[in-house]
Amino acid sequence: MPEEQARSERLASQIRFALEIDKLTGVLRQTLLLDRSRQENSAEHSWHVALMALLLKEYADPGVEISRVIMMLLVHDLVEIDAGDTYCYDVKANASKADRERCAADRIFGILPPDQGSAFRALWEEFEAGESADARFANAMDRLQPMLHNYHTEGLQWRKHGVSSERVLERNSRIADGSSVLWEYAHRLVGDAVARGYLDR
Amino acid sequence: MPEEQARSERLASQIRFALEIDKLTGVLRQTLLLDRSRQENSAEHSWHVALMALLLKEYADPGVEISRVIMMLLVHDLVEIDAGDTYCYDVKANASKADRERCAADRIFGILPPDQGSAFRALWEEFEAGESADARFANAMDRLQPMLHNYHTEGLQWRKHGVSSERVLERNSRIADGSSVLWEYAHRLVGDAVARGYLDR
Repeated sequence: MPEEQARSERLASQIRFALEIDKLTGVLRQTLLLDRSRQENSAEHSWHVALMALLLKEYADPGVEISRVIMMLLVHDLVEIDAGDTYCYDVKANASKADRERCAADRIFGILPPDQGSAFRALWEEFEAGESADARFANAMDRLQPMLHNYHTEGLQWRKHGVSSERVLERNSRIADGSSVLWEYAHRLVGDAVARGYLDR
Repeated sequence: MPEEQARSERLASQIRFALEIDKLTGVLRQTLLLDRSRQENSAEHSWHVALMALLLKEYADPGVEISRVIMMLLVHDLVEIDAGDTYCYDVKANASKADRERCAADRIFGILPPDQGSAFRALWEEFEAGESADARFANAMDRLQPMLHNYHTEGLQWRKHGVSSERVLERNSRIADGSSVLWEYAHRLVGDAVARGYLDR
């Protein structure tokens, strides 16, 4: 293929991807916006957690490269375009989540030129594995943000789904893997939520 | 103030900021989502352009630090929480835009601890000035994304507001300052939009 044509096809794939990801605005999460007007979507959530990573970077472990954390958070929910958002306390849906998301990743990252598709997918897989220092901080942001929303909407979604403080703490203990300061904060928030009746003991 | 108390107040300010910025989800832009279901909001837009910067970084000038571009794009619309989105082709609203946004920046970045408020504000001001290589590429993303949306919704918003191709090219010539390849692409898109009747000559 002549070089110019290859360049043009590369850009065309990238633009196709840019258009495809707009669909993330249509994926609704269980979390409410703070004004309680509606459910948050995954595009808004992705922006919010990426900016929170920048905001709270001083609480990350010393080795964390915050720009990688941000990139990870920008792509971490893209698979939901096909796989949908799986509510974290829905045991049945979570059983098939990994398979659905793998298929979604094949299609969505497959739109990109191969080198870039692999790089984006690697970021997503690193996030999902949650093992590297960067991924642990990214996961902490992904857990802390909905917890803040739940608390500041008087636990409407916690109460709707009958979630207990024990499950919230268990689910969100990954915050501790990313930041001891933020985990201490989150832990206090849960205690306070129980005291205020936002959350069952 | 004891050190522990200062630390706790610092984190409290940061959390207040994290909660405040959720309001960006309520700021509607003129741009439609690609499925035409509704207008895009500024939080979704911020995510989309930040991810596009990562996607299209190979078209930036060699000196561009893409992680700074992304950070800039994550914060570039925060002032709209108070100042609202100003439609780029609305001459009257644009006359008062700078004043409104300055006041908004005082309040919103003022929520943060001073060192961090200054750093975030500096990112926003750099974006607004549009002079550094990083800011020029960030501005190119901010222009290219709505152009793609307009084109792929058959110019609905262009036609609604009676915008001509000349004005679109004039307004979006800042893409050229950020990337010659993307400007060439955008230029062709406008020509094609005229040919298809999405945009007046």
